Amino acid sequence: MQGAWWAPDADAGASGAPNATEVRDASTGEVIARVSTEGLDLAGALEYARTTGHRSLAALTFHQRAVLLKRFALALTERKDELYALSARTGATKADSWVDIDGGIGVLFSYSGKGRRELPNSRVHVDGPVEPLSKDGSFLGRHIYTTLPGVAVQINAFNFPVWGSLEKFAPAFLAGMPTLVKPATPTGYLAEAMVRILVDSGLLPEGSLQLVSGSVPDLFDNLRLGDLVGFTGSASTAESLRRHPSVQTGGVRFTAETDSINASVLGTDATAGTPEFDAYVRQLVTEMTTKAGQKCTAIRRAIVPTAVADDVVEAVRARIAEKTVLGDPRADGVTMGPLASTAQRDEVLRQVQRLQDAGGRIVVGSTDAPEVRLVDGATGSAPEGAFVSPVLLRFDDAQADAVHGVEAFGPVSSLLTYDTAAEAAALVNRGGGSLVTSIATHDPAQAAELATRIAPFNGRMLVLDRDDARSSTGHGSPLPGLVHGGPGRAGGGEELGGIRAVLHHMQRTAVQGSPEMLTALTGVWHAGATAHVGDRHPFRKSLAELRIGDQIVSASREVTLDDIETFAHFTGDTFYAHMDEKSAAANPFFPGRVAHGYLLVSWAAGLFVDPEPGPVLANYGLENLRFITPVSPGDSIRVELTAKQITPRETDEYGEVRWDAVIRNQHDDLVATYDVLTLVSKEPTAEKVPA
Amino acid sequence: MQGAWWAPDADAGASGAPNATEVRDASTGEVIARVSTEGLDLAGALEYARTTGHRSLAALTFHQRAVLLKRFALALTERKDELYALSARTGATKADSWVDIDGGIGVLFSYSGKGRRELPNSRVHVDGPVEPLSKDGSFLGRHIYTTLPGVAVQINAFNFPVWGSLEKFAPAFLAGMPTLVKPATPTGYLAEAMVRILVDSGLLPEGSLQLVSGSVPDLFDNLRLGDLVGFTGSASTAESLRRHPSVQTGGVRFTAETDSINASVLGTDATAGTPEFDAYVRQLVTEMTTKAGQKCTAIRRAIVPTAVADDVVEAVRARIAEKTVLGDPRADGVTMGPLASTAQRDEVLRQVQRLQDAGGRIVVGSTDAPEVRLVDGATGSAPEGAFVSPVLLRFDDAQADAVHGVEAFGPVSSLLTYDTAAEAAALVNRGGGSLVTSIATHDPAQAAELATRIAPFNGRMLVLDRDDARSSTGHGSPLPGLVHGGPGRAGGGEELGGIRAVLHHMQRTAVQGSPEMLTALTGVWHAGATAHVGDRHPFRKSLAELRIGDQIVSASREVTLDDIETFAHFTGDTFYAHMDEKSAAANPFFPGRVAHGYLLVSWAAGLFVDPEPGPVLANYGLENLRFITPVSPGDSIRVELTAKQITPRETDEYGEVRWDAVIRNQHDDLVATYDVLTLVSKEPTAEKVPA
Repeated sequence: MQGAWWAPDADAGASGAPNATEVRDASTGEVIARVSTEGLDLAGALEYARTTGHRSLAALTFHQRAVLLKRFALALTERKDELYALSARTGATKADSWVDIDGGIGVLFSYSGKGRRELPNSRVHVDGPVEPLSKDGSFLGRHIYTTLPGVAVQINAFNFPVWGSLEKFAPAFLAGMPTLVKPATPTGYLAEAMVRILVDSGLLPEGSLQLVSGSVPDLFDNLRLGDLVGFTGSASTAESLRRHPSVQTGGVRFTAETDSINASVLGTDATAGTPEFDAYVRQLVTEMTTKAGQKCTAIRRAIVPTAVADDVVEAVRARIAEKTVLGDPRADGVTMGPLASTAQRDEVLRQVQRLQDAGGRIVVGSTDAPEVRLVDGATGSAPEGAFVSPVLLRFDDAQADAVHGVEAFGPVSSLLTYDTAAEAAALVNRGGGSLVTSIATHDPAQAAELATRIAPFNGRMLVLDRDDARSSTGHGSPLPGLVHGGPGRAGGGEELGGIRAVLHHMQRTAVQGSPEMLTALTGVWHAGATAHVGDRHPFRKSLAELRIGDQIVSASREVTLDDIETFAHFTGDTFYAHMDEKSAAANPFFPGRVAHGYLLVSWAAGLFVDPEPGPVLANYGLENLRFITPVSPGDSIRVELTAKQITPRETDEYGEVRWDAVIRNQHDDLVATYDVLTLVSKEPTAEKVPA
Repeated sequence: MQGAWWAPDADAGASGAPNATEVRDASTGEVIARVSTEGLDLAGALEYARTTGHRSLAALTFHQRAVLLKRFALALTERKDELYALSARTGATKADSWVDIDGGIGVLFSYSGKGRRELPNSRVHVDGPVEPLSKDGSFLGRHIYTTLPGVAVQINAFNFPVWGSLEKFAPAFLAGMPTLVKPATPTGYLAEAMVRILVDSGLLPEGSLQLVSGSVPDLFDNLRLGDLVGFTGSASTAESLRRHPSVQTGGVRFTAETDSINASVLGTDATAGTPEFDAYVRQLVTEMTTKAGQKCTAIRRAIVPTAVADDVVEAVRARIAEKTVLGDPRADGVTMGPLASTAQRDEVLRQVQRLQDAGGRIVVGSTDAPEVRLVDGATGSAPEGAFVSPVLLRFDDAQADAVHGVEAFGPVSSLLTYDTAAEAAALVNRGGGSLVTSIATHDPAQAAELATRIAPFNGRMLVLDRDDARSSTGHGSPLPGLVHGGPGRAGGGEELGGIRAVLHHMQRTAVQGSPEMLTALTGVWHAGATAHVGDRHPFRKSLAELRIGDQIVSASREVTLDDIETFAHFTGDTFYAHMDEKSAAANPFFPGRVAHGYLLVSWAAGLFVDPEPGPVLANYGLENLRFITPVSPGDSIRVELTAKQITPRETDEYGEVRWDAVIRNQHDDLVATYDVLTLVSKEPTAEKVPA
């Protein structure tokens, strides 16, 4: 609590938390932990986040937070063996644990990089271009994102205790929102171990991350406007949480990512023997068996052409027989572990029964208690373990409601058949909104037709073919850079997607005012705001000295026909608009021969550059160049260059400076506008300190 | 219904719709219309939109829809006198009607322009950059937006029957979603007249716009995943609608924009006599009296420094006395009309009483039945008219709950005082989320400090000062290019904001696959997809002939030290990295003297250009240029130019082609990447048809 670990009175033993929940090893049934929140001051924890947590995060810029994310990732990497050992107790194989643990750490690395590349080194994110709101330029509009003032409450599912926590934490942290994470009780001990490593690292800003293990029935009563809930779990729990007045009328943002009845479609071109057929079957078996099928993104519906249905069944059966060894994850050679708990096992078997009752025939596997490989390598039954064999059902009636609505959250998929693309799409969409649908086809037209029909019902679509079968990250893998979430049954929320998820933790606000005021509110110079033309060329100023609005206005230079000829012959660009008066005049946009656009920007650089060594290290790019008024022989140009945005790097001795460049002619008409991107030293170079 | 007007059986007279609601003139109480939905087949109307409406909109591209929006605007402009005449009956003055009618038409024009400038001429919108997902480039990610498959149901408030309908219709139409609009009953006859003009124009695609007048209690029972509701009205109605299972669990998107308790803060620098003080008072009176204060964006809380509170009261009183003439909008000289109905009048007076009970003292105006200017120019009482005088209340206790929670939806504001910026911000935020807050100050630091604190509680912020006082569009005016909506009490939704609102009618989906597949799914060429190097230079192909992926690979050209010298002296760009071996080598990014970036892109143009007159008309810009590997004397460069995106214009004989440009050196290292933007003719020029 408030910067310290808290537990129900430990001295009092069992009487301290008489209603504590026992959590057991998924393979052996051994008790691992007892979980209780009895006596917890949850309101205090939330308020601690909103005050201390916010203050400590607000003291950091986006880039400083991003640097910390990388250090968190390194701290977890250093002690990940501890996490792997605990992870095995949840039923996860080594490969499953890699997805959870290394996958989670990977999200931190990814957000650390994206935060520094794609966000400014400040606290406000500017969205979209300037909206001119008056003819004279004195009144402008823009959009900004600012940090939500509350706490990000993250309610996670049991299947990925590490990844699930970190994929929500990373964007919240980057946005500047303190996190209160509530892992699912059956595997919460692993999330707790992860948080403990972060706490031990001493790197966490005070109040930026808190953990609550166990049930918190009064959680939503304590939330208010400015808070946000990120929920992952079942659709029914999401429903009941969403109904709370805090969400309905209190303005608390609620984002749900619920397991959905995802589909995978085999294209009509992908008959047995094609690389796409093989890739489809491999992917289907992977999705059934990885994490014992306990993935919200797993394939629940395999939708295949009628003609190849038998081939698919046979290939799935063969691959499972060849590849899948069910057992205790600590035993050698085991490729698929138990479910997270015997309660989950019983629940999955109940759902399989529902699918059977609705017409599903089991064509691969069985619901009998399986023989499994025990920790000592022997084969035997394990009634205390949560083991279920992979099961493929087949529905002769693809329209059966149950197959589109009942989820067995384990190693269970159902096979449906189709004849036309329209039918396949309609079946996909019967899922009522999914996290992901994959399509195996090598025919771009078929992929495009299916995608057009199903895209609005999916948060993610993957096209699998011979070209990406080896490099594909797979149907079931959400990636930090891609949106994770989907419409309807999938919860209607969005997570990840790179900076998109950061912005979901911020408020978008339109701002209106004079250029001066928009400059003050955004930290980015707006044309029309005060510019400072001083004695020193701005290229002679280090990042420590340069200010937004520092400007150079160049001398003007006349462009002659000779110059145009010279440039044309030097560059080889003898486009007729520069070379042939008659043809140029016939062009709808030119009065006659005109200067090359590249000549203008090259000359502009000659006009604004300060040539001697100094803090400006390189021009690394250019953006948004638009040529507006053509320049004819005899016209003169000059350039105004103004420091627009300054982004010092946290871990380098330099940073980025974006310059607003405007070229005008002798009549003050706009000739070209663009942004020049440079790298500039933080400090003046020793030998070249300007006078 | 289904492409035809429908009304409850007209022949049966009163018995045809015995429960019809009577709608009356706001000034005179005269009955204008009787409204009923008895017998309406609402489910049929919705299904007509989802089938016929979707089909007819899906046949059009974004640009084709955008062109239609402009034609709708012109059709309405032609007959706007009819709308103005009806609008007066709602209580609107000419100025009020201008906001509603010309404002609404302006939204159509704005979306028409933005749709053509900012969306592709296709049906899929690509969001964000490519996400590389494999080292070998064979597996990529991207995000696309596709049209939601359902109907956009638009439930509007009574205050802006034309603007309110059009500001929701325009983005829905542009997105390709058919609209079913339900105006508020008291002024719905004006919305109906507007829709009738559009129907009469013959321009509406079949099923793209339907109107329902009157109550539709079973509306939400008939909605489903893929449908969207855009609601404007009271927070309490929004609450009850949001609770419907269609929204809670059915996946129907629900966006609410509710009237909020907006604030306007006077800065501490803006004392009496400053331009900001005057602008603040003018704006406050405008917001109280425009549309008789019936605006969801109106200023309900005037938050001013304690020291100038009396000055503000005095100035508001004087300005109202000088400027406000209350009366029938059809009478000459009237500047403020009645509320929309006597029911609204009574409701407003009730809320004023609540504010008084909570400690508000009326310091300007009164709640007595006012003498007003009648239609004949005489002054008198009008008990059948919905007239209320402007009222300013003053709260000595700025913390009173009522002033932050009770809304009198009429010409009513309350004055609160503060001493510090932190106090002012806390008062603003007590509103629990607002559509807009304005700040009058000439001090950028003060504006920035306030904005930082209040931005997360506001959908829009306006800074008013001497620089924008004349050009400002005002506190209460939502603009097409800026987001309209706000968190918490303001409903939590977003409308307008340019293309942002279009995207709210679409589903964002992450797509993964090979470059070939992403090209097929997005309509944009992705590096790695098939490129076609043919006999004909792609610059010789008109838009009718050019295909995505058409490519030219140039010859290679060596860069010598001489070339660098020549370019430096020609352009004047003698930056040391190009001129001085020793200093260049000391630079962290360069091996020694290197070629100018501008030299490289200029030469690249020389290498890829086809100089003779042909379909390519101009290079109008360049985007996302990044210099990656420096080029030293002796290196060679070559360029690949590939048609990436083709955007024919609907109303011109040419369109935009975006080319992917990649410069490589002799080792195949990337030297520079950028997009070249060109204008290209739709047809080959007559005299230059290629062989």
